[in-house]
Amino acid sequence: MGQITFSDVVAKTESMKGAPADFGRRSLIKAGLAASILTLWQAEPSWALEDRMSNDKKHGALPSILTMADVHAVSRALAHYTEGPLLNGLWKRPELSSRDRSVVTVAALIARIQSIEMPYHFALALDNGVKPAELSEIITHLAFYAGWANAMSAVAIAKDIFHQRSIGIDQLPPAKEKLLPLNEEAEKQRAAQVSNNFEAVSPGLVQNTTDLLFRDLWLRPALAPRDRSLVTVSALIANGQTGQITYHLGRAMDNGLTQEQASEVLTQIAFYAGWPCAFSALPVVKDVFEKRQK
Amino acid sequence: MGQITFSDVVAKTESMKGAPADFGRRSLIKAGLAASILTLWQAEPSWALEDRMSNDKKHGALPSILTMADVHAVSRALAHYTEGPLLNGLWKRPELSSRDRSVVTVAALIARIQSIEMPYHFALALDNGVKPAELSEIITHLAFYAGWANAMSAVAIAKDIFHQRSIGIDQLPPAKEKLLPLNEEAEKQRAAQVSNNFEAVSPGLVQNTTDLLFRDLWLRPALAPRDRSLVTVSALIANGQTGQITYHLGRAMDNGLTQEQASEVLTQIAFYAGWPCAFSALPVVKDVFEKRQK
Amino acid sequence: MGQITFSDVVAKTESMKGAPADFGRRSLIKAGLAASILTLWQAEPSWALEDRMSNDKKHGALPSILTMADVHAVSRALAHYTEGPLLNGLWKRPELSSRDRSVVTVAALIARIQSIEMPYHFALALDNGVKPAELSEIITHLAFYAGWANAMSAVAIAKDIFHQRSIGIDQLPPAKEKLLPLNEEAEKQRAAQVSNNFEAVSPGLVQNTTDLLFRDLWLRPALAPRDRSLVTVSALIANGQTGQITYHLGRAMDNGLTQEQASEVLTQIAFYAGWPCAFSALPVVKDVFEKRQK
Repeated sequence: MGQITFSDVVAKTESMKGAPADFGRRSLIKAGLAASILTLWQAEPSWALEDRMSNDKKHGALPSILTMADVHAVSRALAHYTEGPLLNGLWKRPELSSRDRSVVTVAALIARIQSIEMPYHFALALDNGVKPAELSEIITHLAFYAGWANAMSAVAIAKDIFHQRSIGIDQLPPAKEKLLPLNEEAEKQRAAQVSNNFEAVSPGLVQNTTDLLFRDLWLRPALAPRDRSLVTVSALIANGQTGQITYHLGRAMDNGLTQEQASEVLTQIAFYAGWPCAFSALPVVKDVFEKRQK
Repeated sequence: MGQITFSDVVAKTESMKGAPADFGRRSLIKAGLAASILTLWQAEPSWALEDRMSNDKKHGALPSILTMADVHAVSRALAHYTEGPLLNGLWKRPELSSRDRSVVTVAALIARIQSIEMPYHFALALDNGVKPAELSEIITHLAFYAGWANAMSAVAIAKDIFHQRSIGIDQLPPAKEKLLPLNEEAEKQRAAQVSNNFEAVSPGLVQNTTDLLFRDLWLRPALAPRDRSLVTVSALIANGQTGQITYHLGRAMDNGLTQEQASEVLTQIAFYAGWPCAFSALPVVKDVFEKRQK
Repeated sequence: MGQITFSDVVAKTESMKGAPADFGRRSLIKAGLAASILTLWQAEPSWALEDRMSNDKKHGALPSILTMADVHAVSRALAHYTEGPLLNGLWKRPELSSRDRSVVTVAALIARIQSIEMPYHFALALDNGVKPAELSEIITHLAFYAGWANAMSAVAIAKDIFHQRSIGIDQLPPAKEKLLPLNEEAEKQRAAQVSNNFEAVSPGLVQNTTDLLFRDLWLRPALAPRDRSLVTVSALIANGQTGQITYHLGRAMDNGLTQEQASEVLTQIAFYAGWPCAFSALPVVKDVFEKRQK
């Protein structure tokens, strides 16, 4: 293939808007440029957001596509709130570890397809001690709890971060592995309740819930049940799915999430999913806390 | 215009970050490159996702921007769940045709702006027997039922798929055409109920609902009322808008959607909008089913 | 740096898919191309959407990434509804000013990360009399009321529009400025109520709500309290957060939003967030209206 200059691409593009042209050559250009765009879009230059990170520990993060200078150019107030109350305030509160804050934040971003902050927070999560295998499982878990395309949007970002950090599949969980032991009694109860209520309404959904979720996904060992619950509860709050919080927050606390931690999850999520999501969850969380104290 | 090489673009870009530069030439570069990016972003290389599709029939799909290898590199478990339980499990269940599953899935993706899976599923929908005219109407319908920008996000993908498959506007519905006959009695009842409740609250909304939706959009013949209902119900479930499900699921069943199909819509949507959306809809759907059986 | 032609980029890209290659040079290309992509993606060519705007006043808008021709190529019906009932109908209704319609629309788009229409509507908002300082504050306000990444997605668009229109930070609010006077009595009541209900559930959230929102953000003078309320209510309706509407709609009307305007907000939002969001809000809005008339 001969030398194709940028002006050729411009010309090509112009001609593409008219009658169909030389498809073979165009496809070649397309394949190449599309691939580079896709790769480059997320594999961001090192200057991006570096000032935002400057008061954090050094890391090899793939930053977001915004620089702190960009934020400054649009809203000095937002830059101020980001550097102060958010990064130097919220993230340093002792009620929840940085690692758990990253789990909550990553879950919220994936649950709402907030792609623009994924590169920054996926990288920060790894820096904060979330293992690559755990990030991988969080994404898989959210395919079921937030939607398949949500997980795929996360894959599009994570693949570049994994590549940049030389994280190979040897560091990631296998497709299938020995499952954690099932709490048969609790699962029997759960299944019976769902089945009694909804078997006749949607047998396919009820069956998949048992087979794929509670007897498979939840038992995968690469993410501890407590963390899986943390991801689930965070996604529910971030998406305003208050009707599902009661069961999963109870399960989370059964799995080891303390009340203080659950309380701080709300503080964290308010920033990343917005205050209204946190406030809509408050009465439900209150109710769960009160019922467990009896 | 002289030859502009890639290094010029890099240089230009660097200079753009500083003081304002030569705007005329920059604009030209911008116009050309932006156009190529916009075109190429969605017009993906043929290697993408082809293995994902390998166990499906051959098709000329514009695939998504992810390959199965990308998914594998981030989560072998997610790759396994995609190939097994999703593509070879869910999509092959007999309770709902592949064509209807595509309608449900496309509606869910547009309702949630899950752009990353739109290229794959728009193409699959056409392969599964959704006519171009129907896909066009689904997008238009969701402008009203999910938001104008949701429809525009779908247009951005669909235009390239239509272009690639040489689907011209001769295959698409005209802007205005002879409407289906109106069920005057049912519409009178609906309008009266809404008007009694909400005329004083928002007369503009009530008026537009009658004029634009029920005496226009719903009567466009390019999408059967049963399919229009299927799109609407899918979007409502996918967006967690449980308060609107009762009316529209009843209407869907009046329009010919069977209870078995409605039940399976929940099974399908669980994967694409996440389990919590499906479970939040379950009690409402149950109620509709039970009331119709009396 | 020597001349790098497009064919080099294609070749590079191909090699990037295999074994790791020359990272130094690749990074340079990446940095340059990524920067140009990021800049150009939003800085759209002038032909885009210009026909859509043709019946509006001349403006220097950065249009969306879709042209009206694109819409036409996918759905002539959608093009018709856009030009007629939406742009020449809804936007010209006298019940709400164009400026307020822009505030509502921009808030809805940011609240739902409907990026594809942001360039068009941010530019239109400025043309309709929303000041740059106000747009800046709207984005900041929605960091708290819709999520940090929602605001960042808006920053990514606004920075280019501000750059193109030569809007410097001298036209934008400072990070900190003299706050508006606080209505101590009303705030005391609000704080007491929230504290009584939820202090024990999430002390961090309750504290931040007082310190960051009601004693800081809401008192920033660059956006009038009435407009801040309009943004908040619009975001709540657009995201289906009906549980939070009662308080904020009451506050909006205390801040000067008339009932006729609030009513028309629903008419406007139906198009941009979809009918179901507007209809889910209707009973709550009705209740607020009725209680205030007593």
